[in-house]
Amino acid sequence: MITELDHLMSDRNLDAIVVTGLVRGNPALVYLLNGAPISHAIWIKKRGEEPVLIAGSMEREEALVAGVPVILESKYNYYQLLREHGGDALTARVAFFERIFDDLGIRGNVSFYGMEEQGSAYRLLQGLNDALPEVTIVGEYGPNLLGEARATKSAAEVVRIREAGRRTAEVVRATVSFLQSHDVDAAEILRRPDGQILTVGDVHAFIRRQVVLHELEDPEGFIFSTGRDAGIPHSKGTLDAPMRLGESIVFDIFPREAGGGYFFDMTRTFCLGYAPPAVQRLYDDTRSCMESVIAQVAVGNEARHYQVLTCAFYRDRGHPTVEESPATLSGYVHTLGHGVGLDVHEEPFFRAETLLRPGHVFTIEPGLYYPDEGMGCRIEDVLWIDESGGVHNLTDFPYDLVIPMG
Amino acid sequence: MITELDHLMSDRNLDAIVVTGLVRGNPALVYLLNGAPISHAIWIKKRGEEPVLIAGSMEREEALVAGVPVILESKYNYYQLLREHGGDALTARVAFFERIFDDLGIRGNVSFYGMEEQGSAYRLLQGLNDALPEVTIVGEYGPNLLGEARATKSAAEVVRIREAGRRTAEVVRATVSFLQSHDVDAAEILRRPDGQILTVGDVHAFIRRQVVLHELEDPEGFIFSTGRDAGIPHSKGTLDAPMRLGESIVFDIFPREAGGGYFFDMTRTFCLGYAPPAVQRLYDDTRSCMESVIAQVAVGNEARHYQVLTCAFYRDRGHPTVEESPATLSGYVHTLGHGVGLDVHEEPFFRAETLLRPGHVFTIEPGLYYPDEGMGCRIEDVLWIDESGGVHNLTDFPYDLVIPMG
Repeated sequence: MITELDHLMSDRNLDAIVVTGLVRGNPALVYLLNGAPISHAIWIKKRGEEPVLIAGSMEREEALVAGVPVILESKYNYYQLLREHGGDALTARVAFFERIFDDLGIRGNVSFYGMEEQGSAYRLLQGLNDALPEVTIVGEYGPNLLGEARATKSAAEVVRIREAGRRTAEVVRATVSFLQSHDVDAAEILRRPDGQILTVGDVHAFIRRQVVLHELEDPEGFIFSTGRDAGIPHSKGTLDAPMRLGESIVFDIFPREAGGGYFFDMTRTFCLGYAPPAVQRLYDDTRSCMESVIAQVAVGNEARHYQVLTCAFYRDRGHPTVEESPATLSGYVHTLGHGVGLDVHEEPFFRAETLLRPGHVFTIEPGLYYPDEGMGCRIEDVLWIDESGGVHNLTDFPYDLVIPMG
Repeated sequence: MITELDHLMSDRNLDAIVVTGLVRGNPALVYLLNGAPISHAIWIKKRGEEPVLIAGSMEREEALVAGVPVILESKYNYYQLLREHGGDALTARVAFFERIFDDLGIRGNVSFYGMEEQGSAYRLLQGLNDALPEVTIVGEYGPNLLGEARATKSAAEVVRIREAGRRTAEVVRATVSFLQSHDVDAAEILRRPDGQILTVGDVHAFIRRQVVLHELEDPEGFIFSTGRDAGIPHSKGTLDAPMRLGESIVFDIFPREAGGGYFFDMTRTFCLGYAPPAVQRLYDDTRSCMESVIAQVAVGNEARHYQVLTCAFYRDRGHPTVEESPATLSGYVHTLGHGVGLDVHEEPFFRAETLLRPGHVFTIEPGLYYPDEGMGCRIEDVLWIDESGGVHNLTDFPYDLVIPMG
């Protein structure tokens, strides 16, 4: 949580943290800026002090939305520095940060965060480290302070994720109704009102429109795949494949609030009209697995524990799993879940050392894949652990496999 | 152009380039992967040799779309290295790249590109530089090799940008028709069929739907702003403002191909029903400026020259400009254009040293802003300079200011 920043800085022995970059595509900045609609930012916090936001002069009013003191970039006059350094942008940028650090009294261990062009960041941070004798630049490789802060959600964040979930479920509901509204021909293929075959691509187009109509956006796309594609976890679907009865359909949808905000992530497996026994078996095993895992989710346990549990559950029912065969492409072939927030995949990741904590919002998504038999099945919900350790399912949609056709 | 990579590497004395990261939000990778629908990649090219793509095993088939030799990540077995290094992810990742570099015979000056978390990149590149005696890591600060390659478009890229432009113009056309379909009340305010006031927010919702219906997406949003907002270049519009006759409307729309592809970028200024004389004057000056600038665009000229020309043009007509008053918020307050491609803003930027070259695709967007008088005006087209130096306007939409209301 954002209230833990000082504590997390202490843990890492950091005297200041600096978050920079374009705001779009930069969840760390989106997180810290309270939705301020600005294009780029330098956000700085010294340990034990309130943060400050350095923003462009053109975005002065918008920057105030961040709710922290705003300093205009022009105060540090980059363009004057650029002239003084004969147009050398790197040296000028180092001098620009030197001015900022002097002005704000920043010294000691300083860690930078945010998405940047990597070669550019490498040169700048090296330059700063070399130029400023009182500052040591200490980047974090891998999991970092802001990822850890973002992993535990505030009540306000949960409200937004739950609402994104409500709208996501509406999109799935509309898609089910759309499928049901079609006639079925003698070959068990769905037909559009114009007599043409209804394809996976037609359904994709419908889903995309529904996402927008529900004030969501899908920067990461979605998965709506059938048959063999449903048996490959990453396949998004073959657009010209016809929609037909009795095939497994994996519908995994992970949109976020329109304009860049919180994601949701849910998956259902469907069969139109009826379910063949083999698909029904995958579904029954997966649903039982889901219900068993969710019933056991509890604060303080290792996230990894639930992966082991899932593998054991599936193995007992005769499915290969990644636990015994890491490279298997059949059976249970992936990990069980991940955090959801301003990134669709974020902390808590289901690593060995991750412990489930109050505030965590994460998916549980068991699934079975048999591409050579032309089928797959996955069910995915988003769970939230509240302050008292209570586990809540934020996904309001039934698990039913079969979509009855008229 | 992608065919210039060896030449650009020579210019910079680079022996190899490495591009890494998630593909989403990473235009450099999108550019190099030929649309291969994979989630992450390590793309490597030695000078004078074909590139190779290192991809995840789960994405083997999708990676082939890139049209270059694919090596599966598993060949270099990161997880074994992680175990060997007692779970230290940074050391393991350095050893992983060491294996790749050994395998591919990479040494000398190696430059990394692509969007990454900056602290993470800093640690990894430092680690590589220290660990590999035969390799020097040389990041580029600011404008870089891939930006320069991407600045000049191939014929295939121009086809895609032109098509994105055609669809963008369709969205603007649909929006004009939508506005025209409304009744106007005695106070000159547009009314919806249900009698409610038509707001800027209603128009935003319509535009968002149209963007999706035309197989586009708007990851950067758009500007549809009226009155005082139209006088502030970055204002996206006030959602509850009513749509009324005679106000200046700035509509700046910059979507890209759905699923992540090429952007387009165009702006028109409209008045519903009639144009007050003050707005008409801004429009007349801006349209004349636009036509004058476009007529003079030619290969070999400095991009900066057109900014100077625009300032002179506006100054002669009595408007303040950034040339004499860099901090002005009235008159002509920004730069004239920017390249458009896989980023909405990319090379060529209108810097002092930028020369217009064959293959460049860029905007020209003069505008005048008078927020205190509640008005603004901008016109923006996308131009392309072909191989022979011919200048083509890719924007197929009239400049007309007034939208006649029934």
